[in-house]
Parts: sequence; structure tokens; C-alpha cells
Amino acid sequence: MAAPAQLDRAIIENIVRQIVLAQAGSATKGNILTRSASEGTYTPNLVCSISARHCHLTDEHVEILFGPGAKLIPEKNLYQDGFFAAEQTVMIVGPRRRMLPNVRVLGPTRPASQVELAFTDAISLGIDTPVRHSGDIKGTPGCVLVGPKGVVELQEGVIRAARHVHMSNRDAEHYGVKKGDFMKLRIESPQCAVVFEDLLVRSDATSKLEVHIDTDEGNACFLDGATQVELQKQTGDCKCKH
Amino acid sequence: MAAPAQLDRAIIENIVRQIVLAQAGSATKGNILTRSASEGTYTPNLVCSISARHCHLTDEHVEILFGPGAKLIPEKNLYQDGFFAAEQTVMIVGPRRRMLPNVRVLGPTRPASQVELAFTDAISLGIDTPVRHSGDIKGTPGCVLVGPKGVVELQEGVIRAARHVHMSNRDAEHYGVKKGDFMKLRIESPQCAVVFEDLLVRSDATSKLEVHIDTDEGNACFLDGATQVELQKQTGDCKCKH
Repeated sequence: MAAPAQLDRAIIENIVRQIVLAQAGSATKGNILTRSASEGTYTPNLVCSISARHCHLTDEHVEILFGPGAKLIPEKNLYQDGFFAAEQTVMIVGPRRRMLPNVRVLGPTRPASQVELAFTDAISLGIDTPVRHSGDIKGTPGCVLVGPKGVVELQEGVIRAARHVHMSNRDAEHYGVKKGDFMKLRIESPQCAVVFEDLLVRSDATSKLEVHIDTDEGNACFLDGATQVELQKQTGDCKCKH
Repeated sequence: MAAPAQLDRAIIENIVRQIVLAQAGSATKGNILTRSASEGTYTPNLVCSISARHCHLTDEHVEILFGPGAKLIPEKNLYQDGFFAAEQTVMIVGPRRRMLPNVRVLGPTRPASQVELAFTDAISLGIDTPVRHSGDIKGTPGCVLVGPKGVVELQEGVIRAARHVHMSNRDAEHYGVKKGDFMKLRIESPQCAVVFEDLLVRSDATSKLEVHIDTDEGNACFLDGATQVELQKQTGDCKCKH
């Protein structure tokens, strides 16, 4: 059975799959694969990233799973500064002993461990996973994490990450939104165009403009084939109701 | 390894997973889980179904895979009259010997065998699957089908089925569309609202109104949690551009 190693490659590829499509403001069309050089006006550079299933761990859980004194070893930097995909992976075991063999750990470590799955993953594991924003794990299902040196039984922390968009305060000002607002993202791709609503704005002083969707969402809209992406304020006054 | 049998159950559940949400015309909101009883006007009953991975077979391939004289045995009727999920399943083997162990066969048989996968499935198999409408398989990738009595090497026929909507001519008239037009479907669900564009209209005299999306699309929009679905004509004159 060579499947685990093969799956793992796919996961790594997926984690770092990103589509960078510049947009010249939400009202302008054009060659959207080229960044518009508009003088005098600020044009955010929109990145849409697919987050494949992954987990975040506490320092304590890293040591249990990978041995006393173990630290996460960065393998690839993520788009947001300071975050990385680690060399380490864990096995996620759900109810009835279904499992995902190689789930990537992302760093740095956190105050609480958390597993982020697409619904496809959760269904295959048999876990009824709620849609939550990162960190909001109270009352969510748990699972078993198996590493090369130990096992952790999570009492909670398995979520489907709700879609969201990171941005700087400058980007937020550009779009006319603030932290906690919702936006929508239209992906145009061959035969698979999709508008995702309900993107939570997570803005701060330094984040780069980046939408995070999961593999189900990325596959639904055929993000790899996308020819245009547009991020828009989600308002209630649209005449066509979306 | 009990995984194959467990996977199979999930597949069967998925194949028959359907959301029936009535709508009182595209401009009306209301309690959409209740069918509106509008006298005098025709109100289509909209069904949105998730097609899990499955295959269609020729008579010849049924006999190769399941033995001389074998026929497909209906296990569950699908929503469209005359179509069924068969008792039979096949193993789909892709490049580098990755496989999906129990892929449901749908009946009746067809002039050409065809495998319909979500991108998640296709990626796990390592098949670069194009988005095609059913029956349009020229130049698509092949795969190996393994049954209890034999093996078929498909030279082509593996597709991601493009989203589409079946309807009667009466429904088409109601929506102001015709066969070959495109529509869009808005799914409202908790934190996961999505508008799917590019739904091909497949209308004829007798089909029931039913949208077909795949598991990636159904998971992306959290169809199981949907509170409202709206099917709308896809027009170019929308001010918000989608």
C-alpha cells in the first residue's frame, strides 16, 4: 500500500496551492492576470489560497506526538509572514477507526490544538464537523492524533474552517469594510464560476490580502482554472439578491 | 482494513442525498422549507441533488465486469423516472495504482461507459479530469474498472460532470429559459452561502426539476444545512456582475 505517501504529496501540493489574480478595483474588468499599474491609487493584490486539511498544535502536543523536546520544523513558508507548513504530519483517527494518514501540521504552535478539515475529509472520517472560525472550538468534536512518538486524544477542536479573508487595515479601507464584516468573492472559471458569500474580514495592521477557502470550495469553483477573481463588499442592497 | 465497506456506505448515502426546497418564484422569500400553495400560478418544486462519484456502463462492460449474462440490478430509484443506483459497484484504478474501491454504477446502461468524479476524487486518483457535460467524453482521460468477474480498460470517459439542471419544458417556460441556456443557483446556508453560475439547462417534455451538483459543490455550500435555494436565469444585465 503506497497510498499514504502518495496522498501526502497531494496534501503538500494542495497546502501551497495559491492563485494570485490581481484586480484593478472591483468595478473594472480587463486582463485580470496582469496586475494593473495605476498611479496614485492603491490597488490591492488579491491572493486566493486553498487550505488543505491541516492541524495546529500546542507545544505540549508537539512533544507528545514527536518526542520530548521536539519543535515544529518549518518546511515551507505560507503567504502570511511568520506562518509555515511544518515537516511534521500526524495521523487523524476518527470514530470507527477511519483515518487520514498524513495531515500536515502548520506552525507556529498555538494555545489550543485544532484540526481543520473540508467536509469531504470529515465525512470520510465520520466526524460531524461544524463550520467555525479558527480558534472558536468550544463544543466541537474531537479526534485522535497519532504521531511517531505518541498519541493525543483531542476532546474538541475539529472544525471546518469558515471561509475568510485576511487583509491589512489599508486594504479594509480600500474595500470599505472593517474587521468582522462579511465580503463575497466571485471566481470565474470555465463552466464552474462561483460566488462565495460570507467571507469574514480579518484585518489588522500587517496581514497581506489573502482569501482562505478549503479544498471543497477550491474544487467547486475550479480555482486552478480561474481566469478572474473579484472581492466585493457584501451588501444587502443588491437587486439580484447575491 | 474495514475502510472499503465504510466508504461504500458513505457513497450510497451520498448518492441519494437530496435537498428538496420549494420556492415560490425567484422574487419571493418566505418559509422555503414549505412548498407554497399558490393557486392559479405554476410553482416549480425545486430539488437540488448531490451526485457522488459514480459510473455508467455499456451492456458489454457490465458482462465483462460482472460475468456473462449479467444485468444491472436496481437498488434505489433516482429522482428522475427510469434511472436507478444499481446494486453493483466497481473499483476505479487510476495512474500509479491509486484507486477508489467501491464506485456505484448507475443505470440504465448507456452506449458508452463514463466515470463521473468530483475533483477531490480525481486528485486522489491522480487523474487530470476535465469538466464536461455527460456524454461529451471525447479526448477525456481513461481509467481501469475492476469488477468481481473482470477488468475493463477505459480509453476515455473520466469526467467531472459540469453542473446542470434538469427540467420540463413547462419549467423552462416558467423560468424564461430554453435547453442549452445557463442558470445560476443560490444556496443559502449557515456561513457557507454560495451562488453557482453556469448551470446548463437540460429540458425536455418529462424531466423533473432537479439541479445536479457534485460532492465538492455540495460540501462547499453546505447543502445539508441549506435554508434556502433559488434558481435564477443567468443574465448579463445584473448590476453587481453575478
